[in-house]
Amino acid sequence: MQIVITGGAGFLGQQLARMLLGRGQIMGRSIQKLFVFDTNPAQLAADPRLELVRGDITDPQTVRTLLTDETGLIFHLAAVVSGEAEQNFELGMQVNLLATLNLLERCRELGRQPRLVFASSVAVFGGDLPPVIEDGTALNPQSSYGTQKAVGELLVNDYSRKNFIDGRALRLPTIVVRPGKPNKAASTFASSIIREPLQGQTAVCPVAPATRMWIQSPRRAIENLLHAAELPPDAWGNNRVVALPGLAVSIQEMVDSLQEIAGEKVIRRILWQPDPFIEKIVGGWPVDFAPQRALALGFRADHSIAEIIQAFIEDELPK
Amino acid sequence: MQIVITGGAGFLGQQLARMLLGRGQIMGRSIQKLFVFDTNPAQLAADPRLELVRGDITDPQTVRTLLTDETGLIFHLAAVVSGEAEQNFELGMQVNLLATLNLLERCRELGRQPRLVFASSVAVFGGDLPPVIEDGTALNPQSSYGTQKAVGELLVNDYSRKNFIDGRALRLPTIVVRPGKPNKAASTFASSIIREPLQGQTAVCPVAPATRMWIQSPRRAIENLLHAAELPPDAWGNNRVVALPGLAVSIQEMVDSLQEIAGEKVIRRILWQPDPFIEKIVGGWPVDFAPQRALALGFRADHSIAEIIQAFIEDELPK
Repeated sequence: MQIVITGGAGFLGQQLARMLLGRGQIMGRSIQKLFVFDTNPAQLAADPRLELVRGDITDPQTVRTLLTDETGLIFHLAAVVSGEAEQNFELGMQVNLLATLNLLERCRELGRQPRLVFASSVAVFGGDLPPVIEDGTALNPQSSYGTQKAVGELLVNDYSRKNFIDGRALRLPTIVVRPGKPNKAASTFASSIIREPLQGQTAVCPVAPATRMWIQSPRRAIENLLHAAELPPDAWGNNRVVALPGLAVSIQEMVDSLQEIAGEKVIRRILWQPDPFIEKIVGGWPVDFAPQRALALGFRADHSIAEIIQAFIEDELPK
Repeated sequence: MQIVITGGAGFLGQQLARMLLGRGQIMGRSIQKLFVFDTNPAQLAADPRLELVRGDITDPQTVRTLLTDETGLIFHLAAVVSGEAEQNFELGMQVNLLATLNLLERCRELGRQPRLVFASSVAVFGGDLPPVIEDGTALNPQSSYGTQKAVGELLVNDYSRKNFIDGRALRLPTIVVRPGKPNKAASTFASSIIREPLQGQTAVCPVAPATRMWIQSPRRAIENLLHAAELPPDAWGNNRVVALPGLAVSIQEMVDSLQEIAGEKVIRRILWQPDPFIEKIVGGWPVDFAPQRALALGFRADHSIAEIIQAFIEDELPK
């Protein structure tokens, strides 16, 4: 079994690669080869099964070389993040929409129906939302990122229905606590305000303490991505898209929990500087979900923000 | 004011062109030029304001020539119909998805925010539907045509939000009675079983009499397309897409009404030959809508199937 991870140098891609190599098998088959593809080099320990591939996913020839007759499973995580896709419309369209289409077209051309797990986002929802997002709630993205992800979902569904791929699309909550450095996602602060203060650095919070978010830890996200890959095709019925379960939490609750775990000195490193551009994007994201279908399919949420912060300390900070 | 109709040689495009030339103005401005674009020649009477343009909408250079700084209003009706898009996946993707994207990109490039009315379809709905489709019901197209139209809607919304266009997308019910000849739409029979018998010819009905459809007459469809063009941008809020009001009617009710209007001899020309391919596509389309938003925006439905049949006789048959 050969696996490809696009956007594999991102933090989720890297953790997923480590997890896959550690397990050694997936979908009941042993992993012969894992291609970690990205524009940037991934930071992964050498492994005879691992191949780091650098390239531009918007180039059809690159995608043609990357996906072959041997490719059995693809995790398509490559994306231009929300804030950047809003500011650089053309780049967002190229990477989030056209590259996804290229990838799907390459799968169709190969004719071997590879399994494909697509990382979508709760940013597909927006506008006049009901109090709780159900599985049957209409998409109405209010960002170009959300629009492009929604298009990706529709295509994954149709390419699956036509048996060109065996696709699965997961609407990921905001991932908290991301390791590493801030990125250009509008949501990046939600990780920064925990990650940086725990390491003695200040972090800016651009939204009000009452702002609520729908979050998931990296551990759970990886677990859910692997679960999506393992579910049999029949489990999905006529819809290959699912909004993952998450945890609805306010910034205030995040800060309170951080204080309880790490003390008041740590939370004083959070600088409250409202930014209307970020507030507008984040304020348009839904927070309250009833993810019945995801739970029935066996996807899981975190239990508490305290658990999420503790997991970050265990996984990412020096002992 | 210059206007472009893509797919202008289709029956809706031609009727729309005649109506526009007859009115002489729209959006409070007089019509200087009307470009009717299609691969086929439109059958329209000569008019100094009218220009028939033949070309391939999938060619970006053609679209670049068609849309200029002078273009104030675009009716984007060009499409590969449902049955054909299902059988020729590549053609459907080229015309319904990529050509729409090309058109929008050309508008963005021009930077003059033309008003654009996009013909979408109720085929964006499918799968496990609630008993009644509300404005907030999630899309889950079960055909490539429906998928491609859903992508078009998302893009029209995002390009409008970004002020690249002033877009409006209408989900058209099945249009009954279409004049002319049968086409490759899965729904074409719904017009044939009225149109052909009224003209002494037989017509095949590939679905069961109990099959219900959500329909709209050509008169109402044209009226609604013009209304969409005239509505001010503010009326739309954060969603430029609306499902038009229609009439839910069974094939049996259509046949009964035809018999009442034209006699038993006429309905004996309907040949009942079930076709599983057509039944599956049509059976997946939703029938019961609560189009609150469309009604609030001033869009209108037909009153009865009898009215629709009478209008066809008046408009299309020799006196």
